Amino acid sequence: MIEESEALEKLLKSTPLPVKRNVPVSESVGCFLMSDARAKINLPQVCQSGVDGYAVKASDCEGNLEKLSVVGESVAGAACDVSIDCGEAFRVFTGSQIPMGSNAVVMQEDVIVLPNGLISINAKVSPNDYVRRVGEVLLEGQKISNQGSSVKASTLGALIAGGISEVSVGSFPSIGIITTGDELINFGQIQIKRHQVYDCNGLMLKAAVSKVGVEKIEITRTRDDLREISSEFIEMKKWADIILVVGGISVGNRDYVKEALTKCGVNEIFWRLRIKPGKPMYYGSYGENGQVFGLPGNSVSAFVCFHLFVLPAIRLRAGAAEEGLNLNKLTAQMNSHFQNKTDRPHYVCGKINGGKFEPIGNQRSNNLLALSQSDSLLKVNPNSSIEPGELVDLYHLSY
Amino acid sequence: MIEESEALEKLLKSTPLPVKRNVPVSESVGCFLMSDARAKINLPQVCQSGVDGYAVKASDCEGNLEKLSVVGESVAGAACDVSIDCGEAFRVFTGSQIPMGSNAVVMQEDVIVLPNGLISINAKVSPNDYVRRVGEVLLEGQKISNQGSSVKASTLGALIAGGISEVSVGSFPSIGIITTGDELINFGQIQIKRHQVYDCNGLMLKAAVSKVGVEKIEITRTRDDLREISSEFIEMKKWADIILVVGGISVGNRDYVKEALTKCGVNEIFWRLRIKPGKPMYYGSYGENGQVFGLPGNSVSAFVCFHLFVLPAIRLRAGAAEEGLNLNKLTAQMNSHFQNKTDRPHYVCGKINGGKFEPIGNQRSNNLLALSQSDSLLKVNPNSSIEPGELVDLYHLSY
Repeated sequence: MIEESEALEKLLKSTPLPVKRNVPVSESVGCFLMSDARAKINLPQVCQSGVDGYAVKASDCEGNLEKLSVVGESVAGAACDVSIDCGEAFRVFTGSQIPMGSNAVVMQEDVIVLPNGLISINAKVSPNDYVRRVGEVLLEGQKISNQGSSVKASTLGALIAGGISEVSVGSFPSIGIITTGDELINFGQIQIKRHQVYDCNGLMLKAAVSKVGVEKIEITRTRDDLREISSEFIEMKKWADIILVVGGISVGNRDYVKEALTKCGVNEIFWRLRIKPGKPMYYGSYGENGQVFGLPGNSVSAFVCFHLFVLPAIRLRAGAAEEGLNLNKLTAQMNSHFQNKTDRPHYVCGKINGGKFEPIGNQRSNNLLALSQSDSLLKVNPNSSIEPGELVDLYHLSY
Repeated sequence: MIEESEALEKLLKSTPLPVKRNVPVSESVGCFLMSDARAKINLPQVCQSGVDGYAVKASDCEGNLEKLSVVGESVAGAACDVSIDCGEAFRVFTGSQIPMGSNAVVMQEDVIVLPNGLISINAKVSPNDYVRRVGEVLLEGQKISNQGSSVKASTLGALIAGGISEVSVGSFPSIGIITTGDELINFGQIQIKRHQVYDCNGLMLKAAVSKVGVEKIEITRTRDDLREISSEFIEMKKWADIILVVGGISVGNRDYVKEALTKCGVNEIFWRLRIKPGKPMYYGSYGENGQVFGLPGNSVSAFVCFHLFVLPAIRLRAGAAEEGLNLNKLTAQMNSHFQNKTDRPHYVCGKINGGKFEPIGNQRSNNLLALSQSDSLLKVNPNSSIEPGELVDLYHLSY
């Protein structure tokens, strides 16, 4: 058995470099940037008003109801290449350019409009009041987002505002999923025999893969049969960058996956891990850039191994920085005692509620119901326990 | 100005009921269930082995190297309708049915295989060892997921495993977005004038709406022009369930959105909120089931208002339960002092790191860069402050 940290190191080391592609910025959400994104313009480009009101010289307004003459109007979306002199004001609106010579804006609520184009200022005014200075949000050349970070909705907003129209991102790998097992049938088949089981792992993993941002995903299924597994794998490796084979990876007489992969020329990188659940996990490489994961058939094991190993590989191939490869980490307080009596790190399913983490269910590797009610994974070290009140780091499953 | 809680109450009260539709379970991920989902079968359906080994009568194995006769083999995916007697064992594999008469499984690692179909047991065996009992994961009729909860990848797994092939979910509303402003231009236009601004709000909101699960989203843009805003609104309300109009909703002379909506027959439900940012926000209804939100043009305000108000409306229409309408809540420790000197609740952008929350930037309503670097919102009550070390509840933006 290999240790988890060593397995992860071997995995990341053997994961192919990202393939870059340029996309319109509008199509970059969920992708990872392949270079730092820097603002191409100042935001704002000119000094603007932050409110509806009047641009003035602050020195003209000492709070003694000074009268100023309104000499013009500036609206958002139009140039304003004029200047004001002492005793003059300019009508401005949120986002409109303020004229040269002005250095503050008075809110319209603080202004009394008089006849003959005069206004009276009913407030103390300091320089820069309600003025948006050039580049105060973004300076030309300023970094908006780091290489390797993902583009969220708000990142997209900042990129567009900074004048970026195209970005270089990593391509997500294409993923093939092969579920194996004589007992498996499709969810639509109403007539289920007592020895049959609905195949839930394939679609569960497809949903998880899709959530990560992968677009091309296909599932197929085989019986526990060496030739069938081999031929599906050979078919899939024609197009798939990463193949997940689910089930049949243990040491049993009817576990054919490892043998099939070996026969198909897969280079085994590790097999059998010191973790719980997930001990039977297998990982290898094929062809120039292919990666294959043998995931345990027990649903909880498959789901945990997917998030601990497959997710980082997908994200690394898609250009993610090292700190963004794993599930988000959260800190919470342990709500109850949990003991790990095994010699393997135990990933425990549970739920955070009001800052407290509570393990759910019996933690067996087939307890899919408990998994489905969980939102986090807690790693408990071998032969150790965690007591109520202890602060723990959690992996958050709602990415 | 209306209080935030009153606004939210009016919003939810005026939000139309969900429209149900039945979908294959495989297409339900990200949707909200319109009824409780209950298992249709036991999981497992029969007593199974949890490992590769031998099914035995526990009473036959006292740890004294008893010899048993192997009388048959049971594999996953095949029926096993036989029984064993005293002194007999049955070869079994992970997930295969165990024969009647057996009540425990011995791992193959604890068995010595002898000639003539005999084995010798090298372990103490208790009843139920390595046996998966009928229904131990799911009992027929057991609730898998509540009405109003969302279907995650692991929920999908549990639903399929429980024999559910179709579920009733709420339809996501269709969303139209109208951005307004003479200064706005498309992100692709390289020649930007100094008084122009790249329109980032439309695509930022589209990305946020899409992340929530909405499929039909369209964006259009108008100048600050009463007739143009009205005609785009009239066009959009032909198909959109919810319309977001961005900008032009304040009290300025060039804010035409409210007037346009009134002229188009929108029934105003509230306008101007006691929150920061987001004060100018507007909400109304139109037609039988239409909802329209006037969001402030400042990007941070628009984003915050979207998450506080539009998100709950979308989710409610899509069938979400009350506790799942808002952003996920997290608990963290405040990392620095923050004072809210205003008489409005202030939603502060910031980032969680190692369980600690740190506000980012100057918290101005146009500071899109700070927003894009944030992952959470902290609500700070009016005229109050939060000190380092205090535990705070946060809204998590990475939903």
